[in-house]
Parts: sequence; structure tokens; C-alpha cells
Amino acid sequence: MKTLRVFAPATVANISCGFDVLGCCLQGVGDEMQISLSKIPGVRITKIDGADLPMEAAKNVASVAVIALLEKLKDTKTGVEIEIYKKIKAGSGIGSSAASSAGAVWATNELLNKPFTAQQLVAFAMEGERLASGNAHADNVAPALLGGFTLVRSYSPLDILKLNTPKDLYMTIIHPQIEVKTADSRRVIKTNVPLKKAVTQWGNLGGFIAGLYTNDYDLLSRSLDDVIIEPMRSILIPKFKEVKATAIANGALGAGISGSGPSIFALSKGKKAAEKVADAIKEVYKPTEIEFDIHVAGINPNGVTVISIDY
Amino acid sequence: MKTLRVFAPATVANISCGFDVLGCCLQGVGDEMQISLSKIPGVRITKIDGADLPMEAAKNVASVAVIALLEKLKDTKTGVEIEIYKKIKAGSGIGSSAASSAGAVWATNELLNKPFTAQQLVAFAMEGERLASGNAHADNVAPALLGGFTLVRSYSPLDILKLNTPKDLYMTIIHPQIEVKTADSRRVIKTNVPLKKAVTQWGNLGGFIAGLYTNDYDLLSRSLDDVIIEPMRSILIPKFKEVKATAIANGALGAGISGSGPSIFALSKGKKAAEKVADAIKEVYKPTEIEFDIHVAGINPNGVTVISIDY
Repeated sequence: MKTLRVFAPATVANISCGFDVLGCCLQGVGDEMQISLSKIPGVRITKIDGADLPMEAAKNVASVAVIALLEKLKDTKTGVEIEIYKKIKAGSGIGSSAASSAGAVWATNELLNKPFTAQQLVAFAMEGERLASGNAHADNVAPALLGGFTLVRSYSPLDILKLNTPKDLYMTIIHPQIEVKTADSRRVIKTNVPLKKAVTQWGNLGGFIAGLYTNDYDLLSRSLDDVIIEPMRSILIPKFKEVKATAIANGALGAGISGSGPSIFALSKGKKAAEKVADAIKEVYKPTEIEFDIHVAGINPNGVTVISIDY
Repeated sequence: MKTLRVFAPATVANISCGFDVLGCCLQGVGDEMQISLSKIPGVRITKIDGADLPMEAAKNVASVAVIALLEKLKDTKTGVEIEIYKKIKAGSGIGSSAASSAGAVWATNELLNKPFTAQQLVAFAMEGERLASGNAHADNVAPALLGGFTLVRSYSPLDILKLNTPKDLYMTIIHPQIEVKTADSRRVIKTNVPLKKAVTQWGNLGGFIAGLYTNDYDLLSRSLDDVIIEPMRSILIPKFKEVKATAIANGALGAGISGSGPSIFALSKGKKAAEKVADAIKEVYKPTEIEFDIHVAGINPNGVTVISIDY
């Protein structure tokens, strides 16, 4: 096996009550990447389609993640060539950089006969996130690599869990095409929080995780509340309150900011419900000048997957 | 049915990573109570054995909780007489007041042919907690009423969940007989916490709950960490660090402060392991002047239970 073409999925991080720890993987929304082994040592970006991203290996999240992987193996001989077919828009808040980092390390690991588990790959993909935002967070790369819902139990030591995924959950994502950089979005967050609000948040996170394991959609709905981050970050997203209220009024279990925004997610039970939510929230953005994309996606249980193999 | 004798169990609140939200119910450690219906309206404490507690209905947590229940029913005719056979020491940190409130409302509810669910009874029992500590917390009364592990998902509205309980979990509790009042123990807690630590805490809480549902003892062990409250409160408990370290060195999954202390809990897989932990931590306290009790208990799946019924 010399060349692997993979699907690198988009992801939703935080999911209201799980700031910096929860994430989930989307079905059908994502990039394609082609990773090839080469006899010429070093990691190279050989093609980028669909986005204006750095070709220089030290500046591209995909190559930086693969470099971290090869360094861990103390491998100085292997060459890796990366082609990126970008479909997720940069800065959308659905894990664009994470998809590239995760896709690249996952495919490289396959081509090298799996020296690492998916859990272990998270650490390398996080190096891509460090380059993208200055913060090596795992809440997008973990679900991109493991699929389903994931929890970053701990960063030190890194401990990533794949949680149960109720089968009828669907995401509706609206991406207003305004720029909110992750670094800016982190800057609006206060470094101290009232203990009382932290307790409220961990009650909700606990409820959400219990809901995932018991397939209790009503509990998931009650738990989808963020009293800490959303009030600070949502001011950066036009029409956030209206979109959220409209989604819930149209049957969504809950809605919130996807990652650091500006995308807004709504979680629904069943595809039809998620499509109804999509139709409703479109109408909120239509009267504005802001262009937007909208996606309805199931939860992807697998993470990065193979599209084709060339021997 | 006119008189009910019940077992009112002790409980461990917080469980390291779940400050104010997690709790669990103990097997075999608890009080007995006898609750009788009477034709003379009003709630009366008719006997207290084993503790120096107020006989006045407005000042005893058990009667206050029952008064709240009757008020909700707008019942001004029923009389309730309460006998308390106290075995849990007041101020021990294993839910002494909660056992009394929970036992009284649970038995009264049974005698009145169950107008309320166990979940609904939590709100009445919380009135006993309000009297005891000035704070109507639910993290002891919820497991006392529901059994097993419980999560206070939300206080407003009150939303109490019974979580899954892995069957091999055992608690070792050591109660050093010093006085740490809940109100004092709350006073040492800062009202603001660093967001970074809150994130660490909710990662651990999420991991603990996932571990309960997947019967993953190793995950439970990794998640039993409290970076927020324990560092502040443990200074009030002599030998806390040594007890915790000794418990873990002797095979406990983890250890921490039970509720607001001074009791220290250790969670173990299997009864033998919990007994070994008990033997080891006894040795830490023996050289001190401090008297102590020690308990080894399984997790009680039922909460308050009937001992006998008089018709």
C-alpha cells in the first residue's frame, strides 16, 4: 500500500455543555485527502485544492501533524506526500484544521501498518491544532479520529474516550460566512468563572453523557445548556439568539455554538426533524446580507475512513 | 398501614470530581426511623435515640422535610409522628441530616400511598438540608432516596438522575471524630474558579459517569480527581493526604473527602480490596489522638427501605 485516499470528517466541538472536552463527528461533511509514501525523506504538501493554505510543510497543519508522528517513531527515512482537497471552509467552526491534521496522521499511520492506536494519533493531530490556533486542543481532532461522541477526560496525561452514540441523532449546522478566528473567540472568554456556574455546567455535562449512554433524548435536550461560554462568545455571531430559538421552536433538542463559531449547531432526533430545523433557521439568515452554508448530517461513528487504496 | 419502620442510609456526596452534583448511597450504614400516621394533625418528633437533636418540629430536619411534603399536598389534617434511632454521627460528612430527611419523607409518602415519586421527594428532603446547613443541597438526599449513584443535573428546575452502578464497587469510609461543620467547610471555598480547572473537573466528571455506564473500573479510577474543592477543604482534615495516599497505595481506585468532610472515602473494586484499604488507613489514624470510626460498605441500590410495617 503506497497511496491512501481518505475522507476527513468535519466535527462539532464543545456541544454546549462540554467546553474543551466534548466533540462529535459528522457524516458526509468533510475533506478528501490523498497521502502517499515516498522514498524521498520528509513531509511535503504536494497539492491543495479548494482553499488558500500554506504549501510549506512547517506551516500546514496536516504536514505538521505527520511530522510529529514521524518524530515519535524516530523515523527520518520515510517520505510522506499530502494532497488536500478542501471542502470544509477554514474558520467555519466545524473543525477544518482538525480534519486536515486528523486525516493526514490517520492515513500515514495506516500506510505505516498502524504503529499507533487512534487514541494515540490524537496527540499528533493536536500539533496541527497548536499551529492553527496556538492551542493544542483535542476536542475536534478526537472525534475526527475516533468517530462518534468523544470526551477529552484529561489533557495531562492525554486521555480520550469514545462515548456511546444514540443512533437517531442528527446535526443541523449553519455556517454564516463571517470570520471569527479561534484565537479571537478564545480571547473573549474570561479566565475565571463563578463556581456556581461551573457546578451548573458539570451537572449538564454529566446529564448529557448519561443521556448518550441511556439513549435518553429528552435528557440530552435538558442537558444542552451552556451557562459559561455561550453568553460570552455568542455576541460575536450575528443572529445567534434567533437561530437558537428558532431551532428549538422547530423541534431541535438543543442548539449552540459549534466549536468557537461562527457555525451554529442544532441537535435533533431523526433526520426529518433536523431537516425541518434547517429549513427554519435558513429563514433567519435569508433577510441578512450574510452568506451561509447549511448542512444536515448524521453522527459519523467511524471518524476518518478510507475512500480508495493504490498499491 | 399506620406505622413504618425504615432504614435511612448514609451517603457519600461529591465523590471527588462531582462537587454538588454526584452522590452515592451506602449499604448497611444508616439510621432507623419509625414513622406513624396519627389523627392529630401536625408533625411531631416523638423520640430521638442515639443523638442530641431538637425535638421541636420546626428545628428538626426530619419533621421540617415532612412539613414541606404535607404543605405541597395542602394537607392540614394528617398527623405524622417520627421516631429517630440515630446511628450516623452528626457532622460526620456521610449524610446524617440527609438520612433523617430522606427517611422521614420516604416513609410518610409510603404511608400516604405514594402521592410522589422518589425524584419528587428530593425537593422536600432538601428542606431538611436547608435547615441543617443553610443550603438546600441535594447531593446526599438524592442518593438516600433513589439509591445507587445519583447526579443532580440541575437545581433549577430540579432534575435528579439515577445513574448506573457497577456491581463490584465498595466504599471504605473513615470518620475522624473532629468537628467540621458543613457551613464552615463551605466557607473555605472560593466563589470563583479558574476556567482551566473547571474544564479539568468536567473532563473527570464526564469520565466518571462514562465509567459508571461502561463498568470501566480503570476509567473510574483515572477520573477520581478533584482539582477544585479538595485542595481547599482538605486542610481542615488531619492526615487527609496520608490517608488518601495510603488508600491508593493499597489498591483503592481513588479517595477523597466525603461530602464536606471530615470523613474520607476510598472507592475500591471488590469487598476484599475495600477491607484491605480499611486496615491500611486505620494505621494512619492510630498514632494520633483522634478517635475514628471506619466502615466498609457496598453501594446500596435502593435507598431508603422498609424494615417492618405495622397495620
